[in-house]
Amino acid sequence: MTEILSRAERDEALKQMTQSGWGEARDGEAIAKTFRFADFKDAFAFMSKVALCAEEMNHHPEWTNVYNRVEVVLSTHDAGGVTAEDIKLAQFMDEAATDA
Amino acid sequence: MTEILSRAERDEALKQMTQSGWGEARDGEAIAKTFRFADFKDAFAFMSKVALCAEEMNHHPEWTNVYNRVEVVLSTHDAGGVTAEDIKLAQFMDEAATDA
Repeated sequence: MTEILSRAERDEALKQMTQSGWGEARDGEAIAKTFRFADFKDAFAFMSKVALCAEEMNHHPEWTNVYNRVEVVLSTHDAGGVTAEDIKLAQFMDEAATDA
Repeated sequence: MTEILSRAERDEALKQMTQSGWGEARDGEAIAKTFRFADFKDAFAFMSKVALCAEEMNHHPEWTNVYNRVEVVLSTHDAGGVTAEDIKLAQFMDEAATDA
């Protein structure tokens, strides 16, 4: 099982990711970001790309979609916090959103 | 623009839909249902089918996905309540979920 990141590791990872809109959520047990797209089609295209990656990683996001907006919360439930898997999925999402 | 359903019309529509798990939400201004699937793959396959229908109708759901669960809220923002479009999308979702 992937272990949760230490406070220092999480802070280090978030330091870079904050610039692209990621932040802590749920008292540090998750990271979150709201993605915005031109319209629903672009938002769902993004979700489709992420879904395939998430399924391959067997690591799934919690996400809410309202038209062109996708709110994402990443956490590793089994580990009870943020792990390297969350960081990896977050980075994939940033790339997928740029392509959209 | 589609007009919101009268209280009687909405109650009539919901009477049938309640059996499949739909209920009122947001003080009657929306309808909501939680769909459950075997796993993430089935949940996202359902979302993909609904996304294509929603885009074609130009009527989009608010929805949250956590692994095998999809929580849906339907409302017609422009009309400020539940319209025939919401009922139509809700029925499509029920069919799509049965196929999954």
